Amino acid sequence: MKFPDRFDIIIAAGTIKPYINRTPVQTSENLNKMFNTSLFFKCENFQKAGAFKSRGACNAVFSLYEHDAKNGVATHSSGNFAQALSRAAMLRGIKAHIVMPENSAQVKIDAVKSYGGNITFCIPTLEARETTLLKVIEETGAIEIHPYDNNKVIAGNGTATLELLKDVRNLDYIIAPVGGGGLLSGTALAAHYLSPETKVIAAEPEQANDAFKSFYSKEFVPSVNPNTIADGLRTSLGQLTFPIILKHVQDIFTVSEADIIEAMQIIWERMKIIIEPSSAVCLAAVKNKPDIFTNKNVGIILSGGNVDLKNLPW
Amino acid sequence: MKFPDRFDIIIAAGTIKPYINRTPVQTSENLNKMFNTSLFFKCENFQKAGAFKSRGACNAVFSLYEHDAKNGVATHSSGNFAQALSRAAMLRGIKAHIVMPENSAQVKIDAVKSYGGNITFCIPTLEARETTLLKVIEETGAIEIHPYDNNKVIAGNGTATLELLKDVRNLDYIIAPVGGGGLLSGTALAAHYLSPETKVIAAEPEQANDAFKSFYSKEFVPSVNPNTIADGLRTSLGQLTFPIILKHVQDIFTVSEADIIEAMQIIWERMKIIIEPSSAVCLAAVKNKPDIFTNKNVGIILSGGNVDLKNLPW
Repeated sequence: MKFPDRFDIIIAAGTIKPYINRTPVQTSENLNKMFNTSLFFKCENFQKAGAFKSRGACNAVFSLYEHDAKNGVATHSSGNFAQALSRAAMLRGIKAHIVMPENSAQVKIDAVKSYGGNITFCIPTLEARETTLLKVIEETGAIEIHPYDNNKVIAGNGTATLELLKDVRNLDYIIAPVGGGGLLSGTALAAHYLSPETKVIAAEPEQANDAFKSFYSKEFVPSVNPNTIADGLRTSLGQLTFPIILKHVQDIFTVSEADIIEAMQIIWERMKIIIEPSSAVCLAAVKNKPDIFTNKNVGIILSGGNVDLKNLPW
Repeated sequence: MKFPDRFDIIIAAGTIKPYINRTPVQTSENLNKMFNTSLFFKCENFQKAGAFKSRGACNAVFSLYEHDAKNGVATHSSGNFAQALSRAAMLRGIKAHIVMPENSAQVKIDAVKSYGGNITFCIPTLEARETTLLKVIEETGAIEIHPYDNNKVIAGNGTATLELLKDVRNLDYIIAPVGGGGLLSGTALAAHYLSPETKVIAAEPEQANDAFKSFYSKEFVPSVNPNTIADGLRTSLGQLTFPIILKHVQDIFTVSEADIIEAMQIIWERMKIIIEPSSAVCLAAVKNKPDIFTNKNVGIILSGGNVDLKNLPW
């Protein structure tokens, strides 16, 4: 299997440049003191459509030849990728067919619609999502864009790290959350190609520790009924993402639900920025592993900021 | 009465530079489309101690001669200025004596203590606050720093606009919230000296519209039992701030409580940043006055981000 190479990530940066935000890197003296380290937060919560997913989605959509793109793109997603793909398709002037479970949050349904996404609802099981997607593709001729197990998506996601490494030299570590592994594998490849001395660490909820188990057993372990507030991290690793992670990720640290909520609150209160629970796992990992991160330069990918403000965990 | 002049603001920028953040100016395509205008948000919610108050407090504290500073500084405040002054005094290595009403929120008491502020509690009336402060000053020999009715504080606050005008050319308007008028008068003076073609507008809660009444009657009207969620805007204008506002502010627009909450939620959701209700009045004014702000370049001072996350208005 061929991993995305150095040029795939650099080309992706060019492909998506007109359609995404070059997000800022923010720091906090408060947090640096609190954890006795230097943290550099890559703010993908400020990304278009509120999450890093816009990077991968734009790269996948704008990498298609015209004749492949003409019938649109399709995916199944209940979350940030549905919005990001709908937005990318709208920008290219093609259709996005989104299969969503019928119990998706209304706010997410509305967001997909606001970007012109064409929604097909299904019952909320993985099997129903996959069979419904196949049916939609058969009917429309759309190209499937998997939310994470797709090399263009992985390369696009890696551009967040490319930017981070341009803005901050001498990072000892970069920490990224892991769910399906799309962000983590892009992060790990970008660091490997562009700053090989920087180690990439993953953070994962204990309650959804399939990546941790897969990493240490070196065999794919699926995510079964994960019960975590970090709703972006409930998915299983992919066939493309798992081998990249095995090869290029240094370690995976798991964190408790209480750690996630505490870290999320610290970032809201001290940095005055809104991040979703999935983004808080990285700071939770820093807190839990002072032996590793003390006096280091640590990049943290804040993956997104899409939160239901009426339903906060405190 | 002599207003702070152009050099007072420029010198303040130099005085406080080592002790404050040069906060970013953020924009949002989403909001620009929503309101058909170009908005430039000066993010003082990212300022040290979470609000613009650090500018005025640092300027007041670091403008004192050593022999004046040696017995410390004193003020009465239940809010952001108490934190900002404590922090500034700590940085200068002098004492801050803070008179706080005994019903102040625990989170604010803790914040003042974390910056080494020396708190004296009093019953929650303006009279008690003032007599207690006089007593503290008599006992300690500390210098009083009024939270807003102080020329060094006003000049310090004006540096936010100095930075905004450096970062964004050709602003048609700058909107600032008005409570005691310390931020508004600094904003108006800075714009007058540095970009005279830029008009300064104030936004104020309808439920605390003493500045609006004072402005139009040209006579001081005190704030009596203001009932607004915008807790930073409940105070009355000062003897220094009122004349500056009369002379250099173009207009004052009032906004309802529902408008404030809606604007706050829009900024949290779309911009993924945390602002306090007092900062939301400006966007509420933009929403209410499309005839004025359509197709204009509008600077907005987001005054602070200190919010009780466990007690949100939605």
